[in-house]
Amino acid sequence: MRATVTRKGRFYVDERPIPEPGAGDVLVKVRVCGICGSDLHYVKHIDHIVERVRRLGQPTADLERGINDGVVLGHEFVCEIVDFGPQTQRTLKPGDRVCSMPFLLRDGAPSLIGASPDTGGAYAQYMLLTEAMLLRVDEEIPDEAAALVEPVGIAVHAVNKAHIGSDDVAVIVGCGPIGLALIAVLKARGVRRIVASDLSPKRRELAGAMGADVVVDARAESVVSRAAAAAPAASMVIFENTGAPGMLGKLVVEAPQNARIVVTGIPADEESFLPALSIMREHAFIFVIYYTADEFAEALDLVRRGAVDWRPLITGKVGLDGVAQAFTDLADPERHAKILIDPWI
Amino acid sequence: MRATVTRKGRFYVDERPIPEPGAGDVLVKVRVCGICGSDLHYVKHIDHIVERVRRLGQPTADLERGINDGVVLGHEFVCEIVDFGPQTQRTLKPGDRVCSMPFLLRDGAPSLIGASPDTGGAYAQYMLLTEAMLLRVDEEIPDEAAALVEPVGIAVHAVNKAHIGSDDVAVIVGCGPIGLALIAVLKARGVRRIVASDLSPKRRELAGAMGADVVVDARAESVVSRAAAAAPAASMVIFENTGAPGMLGKLVVEAPQNARIVVTGIPADEESFLPALSIMREHAFIFVIYYTADEFAEALDLVRRGAVDWRPLITGKVGLDGVAQAFTDLADPERHAKILIDPWI
Repeated sequence: MRATVTRKGRFYVDERPIPEPGAGDVLVKVRVCGICGSDLHYVKHIDHIVERVRRLGQPTADLERGINDGVVLGHEFVCEIVDFGPQTQRTLKPGDRVCSMPFLLRDGAPSLIGASPDTGGAYAQYMLLTEAMLLRVDEEIPDEAAALVEPVGIAVHAVNKAHIGSDDVAVIVGCGPIGLALIAVLKARGVRRIVASDLSPKRRELAGAMGADVVVDARAESVVSRAAAAAPAASMVIFENTGAPGMLGKLVVEAPQNARIVVTGIPADEESFLPALSIMREHAFIFVIYYTADEFAEALDLVRRGAVDWRPLITGKVGLDGVAQAFTDLADPERHAKILIDPWI
Repeated sequence: MRATVTRKGRFYVDERPIPEPGAGDVLVKVRVCGICGSDLHYVKHIDHIVERVRRLGQPTADLERGINDGVVLGHEFVCEIVDFGPQTQRTLKPGDRVCSMPFLLRDGAPSLIGASPDTGGAYAQYMLLTEAMLLRVDEEIPDEAAALVEPVGIAVHAVNKAHIGSDDVAVIVGCGPIGLALIAVLKARGVRRIVASDLSPKRRELAGAMGADVVVDARAESVVSRAAAAAPAASMVIFENTGAPGMLGKLVVEAPQNARIVVTGIPADEESFLPALSIMREHAFIFVIYYTADEFAEALDLVRRGAVDWRPLITGKVGLDGVAQAFTDLADPERHAKILIDPWI
């Protein structure tokens, strides 16, 4: 099979053997896979990450093996069942479309798919999934929509962790795919005041299309002040999705009494802030990355019900040969939000 | 009346007029008042605080007026009713002992007692309280115990904000009065594993006396590792009460998956940490300072029921003339935990 391998920060399209499903595994054919911000982060910052982990005194062997042997990225996938390994229930059938949380169970422990040489991701024609984690993708859901279930799952999780109520005011800092998914999920949950900001006019347009009530140019005004003015008595939940250096410290200065700051954006380095301010104002910081199985299933249901419109979000599709170019193109928010990989074109 | 006034970082015992109760106010005679860590912080860092607030572009006039005109500190008090202002219900009677959240309602808005020239605190023989906020102190509660209601209220609030369950493992970083009150409250709430640390042998002894299950020398070993080893499957809630520079960043490195870090200690400056770690591990930071009226009443009830033993905690008592020396003495954790001021000795 063909696979796009990331090795030492570069991409190679390699010929690799189709993986063999082990006990509890299912062999699937990848239909499409989204390129995630964390994939970009991995490729750009992997040396830095290794250095960080080393300085923390933690083992770097697996990360370094990934750098040298190469990793097949890809964890936002919709697939089609091809074959079953031993000890499988086979409730679903070959040809059924499925998605899954991107974990492969190995000796009962979840191992992240698309993050190490041992668990190849969906930048490839075939991959392995764990049967027990499969969710069936109904016929009415196009591949493009199903590929969004994973980022929507993160948004569902972030919204749940924030315990946001419909009377609260939600602030979306950064309208990349996670920020846009957050807007859709908040809207579906009945949150009535959603104020979003981004530097990019195109992203702001997308934020409006996804349902933000107020959209602000981050260069021209403070989204927090705007939200506070729009709903002075409401509790504020701020979703920080940029990972931009200094952003967290800036939000602490602006965030009002009792604000919750939900952090989905991953800064590459240390960040500083003034705890005295957060204490006086009783802020909470809530850091999120994954989801529960329930939240992932809820994300699939939101996508099925059309609560997340994939059309404005999916801005491109490439084959395995086009991954390197897609990573470059994604740097331009005026052109792209989410690019899908179709390993068969 | 006599009052200890803090002016430009020094203490003066002044003769001042007994305050006149306005609408809704009650004039009370102070029985005793605890010296709080935030009082120490105010005296030591006030110039730095003003500089910080100025750099944030916020008004400093009130703070500067406090520096120049002087502030009567003191917000951990038990008092005795002397007289009522106009528009009061007078359900309680002169001579009744009372405590209260340290806020004076002015035009309906709460103003912190013992923090500005306008709302004198309990480092004085008399002060004003708002009748609507008074809680009666039962006869069975000694003054020394009642003076602890305020710090115990902070502990109740911190425990509530952490949503801690009895199966979780609680880590107490720093066993000053708040850390010790936290141990007592956690114990009263049925939390079965409480692991505490401090640099001071005396404070560690107090932590054991308050009910900590394991007490660790912070210099010799990691309290987080010890707690994780003691309860590997439990959720961890870490209470950071030191405000020590670098502590938060250090805790982020050590804190396991899903740890909640409740911050009660106030660092004077900016603190840095690695958000990537907190995101990968889905940490939450919960910053706390006050309490609700319910939580304050619960603190009084805990004190009444003897859940917080005041005897090991109260390590000294001084008159108004002794405040300056008490502030110096409190720097030695081997000698002191909480010093009370009795303005009548």
